[in-house]
Amino acid sequence: MAAAAGVKKIIIDTDPGIDDAMAIFLALRSPEVEVIGLTTIYGNVYTTLATRNALHLLEVADRTDIPVAEGSHLTITKGTKLRIADFVHGADGLGNQNFPPPQGKPIDMSAPDFLIEQANLYPGKVTVVALGPLTNVALAIQQDPSFIKNIGQIVLLGGAFAVNGNVNPAAEANIFGDPDAADIVFTSGADILAVGINVTHQVVLTDADRDKLASSTGIFAQYLCKILDVYFNYHHEAYSTKGVYLHDPTAMLAAINPSLITYTEGAVRVQTNGITRGLTLLYNKQKRFAEITEWTDQPSVKVAVTVDAPAVVKLVMERLMD
Amino acid sequence: MAAAAGVKKIIIDTDPGIDDAMAIFLALRSPEVEVIGLTTIYGNVYTTLATRNALHLLEVADRTDIPVAEGSHLTITKGTKLRIADFVHGADGLGNQNFPPPQGKPIDMSAPDFLIEQANLYPGKVTVVALGPLTNVALAIQQDPSFIKNIGQIVLLGGAFAVNGNVNPAAEANIFGDPDAADIVFTSGADILAVGINVTHQVVLTDADRDKLASSTGIFAQYLCKILDVYFNYHHEAYSTKGVYLHDPTAMLAAINPSLITYTEGAVRVQTNGITRGLTLLYNKQKRFAEITEWTDQPSVKVAVTVDAPAVVKLVMERLMD
Repeated sequence: MAAAAGVKKIIIDTDPGIDDAMAIFLALRSPEVEVIGLTTIYGNVYTTLATRNALHLLEVADRTDIPVAEGSHLTITKGTKLRIADFVHGADGLGNQNFPPPQGKPIDMSAPDFLIEQANLYPGKVTVVALGPLTNVALAIQQDPSFIKNIGQIVLLGGAFAVNGNVNPAAEANIFGDPDAADIVFTSGADILAVGINVTHQVVLTDADRDKLASSTGIFAQYLCKILDVYFNYHHEAYSTKGVYLHDPTAMLAAINPSLITYTEGAVRVQTNGITRGLTLLYNKQKRFAEITEWTDQPSVKVAVTVDAPAVVKLVMERLMD
Repeated sequence: MAAAAGVKKIIIDTDPGIDDAMAIFLALRSPEVEVIGLTTIYGNVYTTLATRNALHLLEVADRTDIPVAEGSHLTITKGTKLRIADFVHGADGLGNQNFPPPQGKPIDMSAPDFLIEQANLYPGKVTVVALGPLTNVALAIQQDPSFIKNIGQIVLLGGAFAVNGNVNPAAEANIFGDPDAADIVFTSGADILAVGINVTHQVVLTDADRDKLASSTGIFAQYLCKILDVYFNYHHEAYSTKGVYLHDPTAMLAAINPSLITYTEGAVRVQTNGITRGLTLLYNKQKRFAEITEWTDQPSVKVAVTVDAPAVVKLVMERLMD
C-alpha cells in the first residue's frame, strides 16, 4: 500500500490495553496517516504481553506488514515497582478473552532504537503517538541528541492538568508509570502535544454507542465488542459513568486531526517523588516570579485544553464500524 | 466595648504585611466580629517584625486593648530557610514607611498557647483567621488534642487549587512557608475553610479604587494609602495587573460573611518536598481509586471556589473609608 502524498507517518508506542486496541484500529482505518510501526511498553500489561498483544492486534487487522519493536521492561525512575492496570483491562490486557498467541515476532531492534532509526530516516515526518508510560521515548531522547530535532511531533496521552489523577488524586497512570521519563520528555525541547485526562474525561463512549457498535458486522467493531466488557465494568464501578473514557482514541485523533482539540502552551514539569509523585504541572507563564524556578527557561510544550468530544466519538464510531 | 450577642470572636494569625494591615483594619471595622487577639508569624516579614507591626497597627487603630501573642520563629518543616516576602511588602513589611516603634509589648504567652487558651475558654466560638504560614495553628493542634474540637473554625488564606502558585508555578506563599504545618492543619479534622489564590486573584483593588481611598479622610484609608505604593508596584511588575490582589481581606471577609464565597469539600494534602513542595492538592472524591491513597480516609475541608468579588471590594472600600 503506497502512502499518498501528505500522509503523516506515525509510530504508536503502546501498552495494549483495550483503548490502545481501539486507537490502533482507528489509526489503521484513517487515510490521513500511515502506521509505520508499533513499539511496546509496560502499563496496562507488562511489556512482554504488550508485544504479544501488539502482534495479535496487527494479525486481527491483517496488517502484519507493520513492524513491532519491543520496548523497555523497566522504568527510568530508579527502584520503581511497575504498576500494571490489569484491573482496568483484564489480566491479558484485552478483556480476558484468551486469544491464541500471535504467529509473528517483534523485530530484532529495541523500541528506542526503532524510534531513532525512523526519525533519522524521515526527518520531521514521523509522529510518535505515545499511549503508555514514556520510557521508550525518553530513552530515544537520551540515546540520540538529534532525536528531538528529527522527530516530527510527539503526541502523548498523559497527565492530569489541574484536575485529579486516575491512579490517585495527584497522578495520571501513564505519567505515574515512569515520572522521570515523563519529565525528560516534557523538558526535551521536542515538539510535544500532551493530551491529559482533563481532556479525555470529556470523551465518553456510552453504553448505547457500544450497542450500536455491536450491531455492526465490521471486523474491528465485532472484535472490540468482545473485549470492551471489562473496560465498561471498571468505569461503572470507579466513576459511576454510563460509558467509558476514550483516552487513547482521543490522543490518536488529536494526532490525526489537530483541529479536534485546542491547546495552551507552557513549561511542564513532573513531580518525581512524595505523595504527588507523577503529578504534571503546567506553568502558564502569566506571572513573572521573583526567583528562578524549576520551570524557568524550560521549553514550552502544547497541552490540550478542549476537545470536540462529539466529533471524536463520531469518528471513532464511523471508522471502527467501517 | 461589650460584644453583642451573635458576634463572632476572631483571632487573627498574621504576618503584617500590607494586605494583612487591610484585613486587620477591616476586622476592627466589622460589627459582625470581635477581634480578641492577634498572633504573629513570619512570612511577609520575620516574626519579631510581625509582632512589632501588629502592635503598631493596633496603636494606629487605637485598639491597644487587643492582646498580641508572638508566634513561632521557625518552621515545623525541618531545615527550612525562611522565605520572607520583603520584595512584595517592603523591608519593614509596611511599605517602607519607617514608622516609629510601638509603645506596647506582646503578652507573655506564645501564639499557640494563646490559641489553645482562647479555644478552651470559648469552645466552638472562636474563629482563627490565619493569614500567614500555618506554623502556630499546627503547633496548637499538636500541643492540645482538644484544640480541633474547641476551635470554631479555621479560615485560612492559603493554597493554589488547580492554578499556578505565586512563589513558583506549584506553590502559594503561605503554604510554601511551612508545608508540613499546612499538611498537619489540613488533615487535623478541624472545621477548615481554605481561601486560595485561585479565589483571591479574582479580587482586585484597582488603581482607581486606591485614588478613591486616598480622597477619604478616614484614618485607615489615609494610613493604607501611604503603605500601598510598594504593593501596587510589585503587582504592576509581577502580574501586569492594574491593581492589587486582596488576598488577606478576602479571607477575612469570608470569615466575617461566608455568603460572599462558595466552596467545595474534599481532602487536601500538601506536597512537602521536591519541585512542587508546597503544592496543595484537593481530592474531590469523584473517583473511587482501586488503591489506598494518601488522601484516603482524610477528613474533608472546605475549599473556596467562587467569590462575589465586587461585593468584597465594595465592603473593603466602605469599611476602610468609614
